Amino acid sequence: MTDIPGGARPRGDKFEAGLATRREVLGDAYVDKALDGADDFNWAMQELTTKFCWDEIWNRPGLDRRSRSILNLGMIAALNRGHEFKAHIRGALNNGLTREEIREVLLQIAVYVGIPAGVDSFRMAREVFAEIDAQD
Amino acid sequence: MTDIPGGARPRGDKFEAGLATRREVLGDAYVDKALDGADDFNWAMQELTTKFCWDEIWNRPGLDRRSRSILNLGMIAALNRGHEFKAHIRGALNNGLTREEIREVLLQIAVYVGIPAGVDSFRMAREVFAEIDAQD
Amino acid sequence: MTDIPGGARPRGDKFEAGLATRREVLGDAYVDKALDGADDFNWAMQELTTKFCWDEIWNRPGLDRRSRSILNLGMIAALNRGHEFKAHIRGALNNGLTREEIREVLLQIAVYVGIPAGVDSFRMAREVFAEIDAQD
Amino acid sequence: MTDIPGGARPRGDKFEAGLATRREVLGDAYVDKALDGADDFNWAMQELTTKFCWDEIWNRPGLDRRSRSILNLGMIAALNRGHEFKAHIRGALNNGLTREEIREVLLQIAVYVGIPAGVDSFRMAREVFAEIDAQD
Amino acid sequence: MTDIPGGARPRGDKFEAGLATRREVLGDAYVDKALDGADDFNWAMQELTTKFCWDEIWNRPGLDRRSRSILNLGMIAALNRGHEFKAHIRGALNNGLTREEIREVLLQIAVYVGIPAGVDSFRMAREVFAEIDAQD
Amino acid sequence: MTDIPGGARPRGDKFEAGLATRREVLGDAYVDKALDGADDFNWAMQELTTKFCWDEIWNRPGLDRRSRSILNLGMIAALNRGHEFKAHIRGALNNGLTREEIREVLLQIAVYVGIPAGVDSFRMAREVFAEIDAQD
Repeated sequence: MTDIPGGARPRGDKFEAGLATRREVLGDAYVDKALDGADDFNWAMQELTTKFCWDEIWNRPGLDRRSRSILNLGMIAALNRGHEFKAHIRGALNNGLTREEIREVLLQIAVYVGIPAGVDSFRMAREVFAEIDAQD
Repeated sequence: MTDIPGGARPRGDKFEAGLATRREVLGDAYVDKALDGADDFNWAMQELTTKFCWDEIWNRPGLDRRSRSILNLGMIAALNRGHEFKAHIRGALNNGLTREEIREVLLQIAVYVGIPAGVDSFRMAREVFAEIDAQD
Repeated sequence: MTDIPGGARPRGDKFEAGLATRREVLGDAYVDKALDGADDFNWAMQELTTKFCWDEIWNRPGLDRRSRSILNLGMIAALNRGHEFKAHIRGALNNGLTREEIREVLLQIAVYVGIPAGVDSFRMAREVFAEIDAQD
Repeated sequence: MTDIPGGARPRGDKFEAGLATRREVLGDAYVDKALDGADDFNWAMQELTTKFCWDEIWNRPGLDRRSRSILNLGMIAALNRGHEFKAHIRGALNNGLTREEIREVLLQIAVYVGIPAGVDSFRMAREVFAEIDAQD
Repeated sequence: MTDIPGGARPRGDKFEAGLATRREVLGDAYVDKALDGADDFNWAMQELTTKFCWDEIWNRPGLDRRSRSILNLGMIAALNRGHEFKAHIRGALNNGLTREEIREVLLQIAVYVGIPAGVDSFRMAREVFAEIDAQD
Repeated sequence: MTDIPGGARPRGDKFEAGLATRREVLGDAYVDKALDGADDFNWAMQELTTKFCWDEIWNRPGLDRRSRSILNLGMIAALNRGHEFKAHIRGALNNGLTREEIREVLLQIAVYVGIPAGVDSFRMAREVFAEIDAQD
């Protein structure tokens, strides 16, 4: 496999439209790392995510980004996917949720998905907050 | 086990506070059926749900009900719990989500939880809509 | 595929040892139905379950059957497998758990696996109890 | 919402390319029912599934359909999605797997996803076989 | 957010009753770390867990702690929550289960939840045992 | 507990037959580490896995190893078991899948199990590839 950097690969309109939203929600640091680290093996996954998830879904007008973030936190906590959960804690902050509102979301997760999911979710959210606070 | 009907059992303040919210979200028909059908075996579950879920969580002021409904749809779809999912489709409508907004929620579920979860979620939502439309 | 009935198929010692335990836990009605309904397609599954699950695990001396039933209820509720959950509610009764103890198990499930799992588990347990009560 | 039948809605090239594969794998009966029953609420889900799942993934040249069917049976059994599992049992037969090969797949599911998943998977596969045999 | 340490926060009777049980099951080291590390963000989760899980459920008289530990190991293994699983391996030892009995529990997990869950569960149990042995 | 090394323990025919296949699929390094590290606590799990999983299932003649690897990747991704997923990425390569074919498998996982599962699966596959490339 070759190693064409993400920035040099051909990308269509849907990719660019999805990428803009992805950057606004997850932040440039996360997205740059994902794209720059891509190679022939996983470039198709970058395309799928950016087009399928970020353009086809997130760019639809019928639901605001704040609501989409709340929905994602609930789903990804239930799916037990830690890396993505932490990325979407950042996304929720970028989409305007306060830490107090995120706390409410996580308490509801604890009751519907179960206490162990709640404990894990609070630990991960605090890790993200600590990373953000350390950068300031 | 005896068979004291739900309406005749002693209930504290937290129960009543949770019950009021539960009725507003899920509707009287659903809640009456749950309470009237309760017996000694499952009354403790009615108490747990009504106090912990509906008073301790849903009655907290830090998050609006519309957001809580969106969160629940995402969690319960990922948890693959059909009965509760259908109850919370009704809850989402009662909390002000339009059918168009619910569609957006379900499309996002299809991408994050996977296509089979999306297919199931759309089928169940349509069953609820058909039940509602048949009553009108 | 041919249609040799379960009773007429050759079966080894481990199968017979597992089958005896399976009958004691799940009851003859359940097991007869499973064996009599078996055909060439699923006989290998009957063998796998009876030998590996019921002889290799349930016949091990280091844990009593009552504890194994409690463990199964927790796992199968979390796995969200309704048919097997109902079979093991019967198994729990056969292994000496009272309905009151089963209630305690299900309340704990509601808190660790989440409220929707608790609601489903209580509904299914009551269906089993109603079936049993109708037979008396 | 209006009620434009699926056959009368505008559809692009990716939709048609995905639809052809979807028909070949799941059969016309399944697909016609899905399309004809679609309305304004779930048409977007039909589009998403047909374009992203059936064109973007199934039409990629790098993996044969037989392998894709095996993969789907494993995933959908683990995801515990009965309706889709049954649809993809049919798909596996249409993609050339024999009933004996499907049995091998399901036995492996029983060991990796757990005995309850195996029991459910065998039951559902037999329901599909019985439906097919009744049509002959 | 302020940073009132857990020990200095106001706590009611249900909290104290739950806390006593939580300490007996999970050990002072685990609980002190959880409380001392709590801040405004996650204190509500400490309250929810201690009251809801440890007082409302664990302090109910109808099921012994040994049984509750067995149940928890099964649920938390199926839920795939490693941190909590390890905490409840310690809890099981504190509630009187021997390592040999825990082995039996994990073998049953391997068959019902699947081999990968069994492999993970054995690895985590051994990590806990090694930590305990290193302290002696 | 004593500490008899795996190589010195008595083992029957089914164990040896399963062990040979396990070595061919997962590689000697993985298997030696598992066996050499086994003690009285987890030896029964080594036996269960080797006999139940590797002899009873993998040694059945009705399905080729390449297909079994594809099936395992789908199941284990959906089960969200990272350690085992990485072991079976190696297994898939040993069973003749190319990296390009593994990419196709993972893209299909992303659509059926959901985008977060796809992201995790790609990351883990790349970690395995990097380990392999570093050894060359």
